[in-house]
Amino acid sequence: MSKPYVLGIDIGGTNTVFGIVDARGHVVASDSIKTRKHNNFNDYVEELHLEVMRLLKLNDAEEKIQGIGIGAPNANYYNGMIENGVNLPWGNNVALAETVSRAFNGIPVAVTNDANAAAIGEMTYGAARGMKDFIMITLGTGVGSGIVINGQIVYGHDGYAGELGHVIVKRNNGRMCGCGRTGCLEAYASATGVARTAREFLELRSDPSIMRNLDIDEITSKDVYDAAMAGDKLAKEIFEYTGKILGEAFADMIAFSSPQAIILFGGLSKSGDLLLKPLREAMDKNVLSIFRGKTKVLLSELKESDAAVLGASALGWEAKYRADVAINSQIISE
Amino acid sequence: MSKPYVLGIDIGGTNTVFGIVDARGHVVASDSIKTRKHNNFNDYVEELHLEVMRLLKLNDAEEKIQGIGIGAPNANYYNGMIENGVNLPWGNNVALAETVSRAFNGIPVAVTNDANAAAIGEMTYGAARGMKDFIMITLGTGVGSGIVINGQIVYGHDGYAGELGHVIVKRNNGRMCGCGRTGCLEAYASATGVARTAREFLELRSDPSIMRNLDIDEITSKDVYDAAMAGDKLAKEIFEYTGKILGEAFADMIAFSSPQAIILFGGLSKSGDLLLKPLREAMDKNVLSIFRGKTKVLLSELKESDAAVLGASALGWEAKYRADVAINSQIISE
Repeated sequence: MSKPYVLGIDIGGTNTVFGIVDARGHVVASDSIKTRKHNNFNDYVEELHLEVMRLLKLNDAEEKIQGIGIGAPNANYYNGMIENGVNLPWGNNVALAETVSRAFNGIPVAVTNDANAAAIGEMTYGAARGMKDFIMITLGTGVGSGIVINGQIVYGHDGYAGELGHVIVKRNNGRMCGCGRTGCLEAYASATGVARTAREFLELRSDPSIMRNLDIDEITSKDVYDAAMAGDKLAKEIFEYTGKILGEAFADMIAFSSPQAIILFGGLSKSGDLLLKPLREAMDKNVLSIFRGKTKVLLSELKESDAAVLGASALGWEAKYRADVAINSQIISE
Repeated sequence: MSKPYVLGIDIGGTNTVFGIVDARGHVVASDSIKTRKHNNFNDYVEELHLEVMRLLKLNDAEEKIQGIGIGAPNANYYNGMIENGVNLPWGNNVALAETVSRAFNGIPVAVTNDANAAAIGEMTYGAARGMKDFIMITLGTGVGSGIVINGQIVYGHDGYAGELGHVIVKRNNGRMCGCGRTGCLEAYASATGVARTAREFLELRSDPSIMRNLDIDEITSKDVYDAAMAGDKLAKEIFEYTGKILGEAFADMIAFSSPQAIILFGGLSKSGDLLLKPLREAMDKNVLSIFRGKTKVLLSELKESDAAVLGASALGWEAKYRADVAINSQIISE
């Protein structure tokens, strides 16, 4: 077995992407299945196994997989379960790690949530290479986060740490958030949040904007971006508003863990200086003086499609390592 | 050398307390000197050394000290310096670890800030024994914090992480904070903050209070506590206001690191249910649902006078261990 591989699996709300990854982080081959095709979890794992085996065979890699890493919404690193997987069709308390490991003849499996997987990918292969302290913020439909301290993902005592999309940025009269509370960062700084800001601004104000030609109920963050790039003043203000809220929130995160960098990931992070300029200004203005100028705001260096698979694959090596350590301790204790 | 000891030193703004501590966390003997007697740092260390040696001799422990741990405001674990030691008389950039180690014939020294030292003390000998994830919040003149994740103090990339007294709790029209910004937790939830709330309430409102018999400019958190215990409604409301702000801030901290407990330390934490009841209510009400009911709010189990010395002493064992590892790696590499 000259070239060991791991398998990285990213279970998203729509697609499940899996990749064969070598020790240097090269995705040898990848493919995907539909996440929602089966309402029964065992059927889903059976199809996943079938398709993965097909890909392994094509790449002459059936005997080479050392470990499997999986990123999935609400997947818990400690117990290998998906708990409260609201975006997934299999109900609560799915034994993810155990079921997948069994399907693959006992290959060791480790799981974590998707935001943590992206952070592991960034640390192992992306913009956070060599960093021991950073925070990864995913600006997508929601706002996710993966926190790394002392070179380790922060899981907290229950496996669910790192919900920075749900720190409160508006204590009074804040927007409703999907979590049931009001004023969360996610309600403002996600792609959805930007669209909500656009609707608020367009309804409450009367200054001209090319966005007034759009159906206000269908407006997206992409529409706001396009308008801002075309020079629309109101659209630019929406990004300033969003960046300011993010920068203020980042200043508080820095007071917690003093990271070397905060790394942005996800669709909205591609807005460039429209978002980054007001974000950095607000962060510098609001951060405690001993931290000023120290924490970089960087963009992810991984392709969005690769990051979670690469991160999951890095977790696959960890699963292999943990299994080896467990076996060795058993040998020693015998 | 049958019984090894370490030395724990707590450098406070007024007193420097030092104790000889055994491996089980028993303070064999302790004493103190005045921190501000010498404006020259070398003179200060000379006196400290003299007094420590006297105490060691009295306890037949001159040859037994394995390591020295020091807690001091703004002391940096990574480089052993006190940087920006605003409350201390020796200027910026004092080589604390190096100077003390030299005075003590090369005994290994490790330093950290006072809030982290208290957290280490609590983890090693107090309410956080056995916990790998907790946050220690010191409610004193200011609000300090020591954060433990995966069993390790969070130092951040620069050694200064854990400034939770300076997260922003009032984004608009917040109170001035000693740090130069406005709206910090410390400006509301410290002993000083409680006194400020009392002044605000007494000036802006007209309902009766026994505190109106006091000189409003001299009012302290102790006065507010005494009034509340005597049944004063306005004084009780001040604790409710303070507890609510703390509980809301704690809910955001939980979203970051999902700690098993938040442990309160310092004078104001002794206010009992006056503070704890509204604090816990606000925390439960504001925390993200997946964390609800999981994080305990506990009181420190260490005497305030002992906590920092014990924490520093635990760091002394770490200093000894680090020195041994460094020597062993050198032997191996030779």
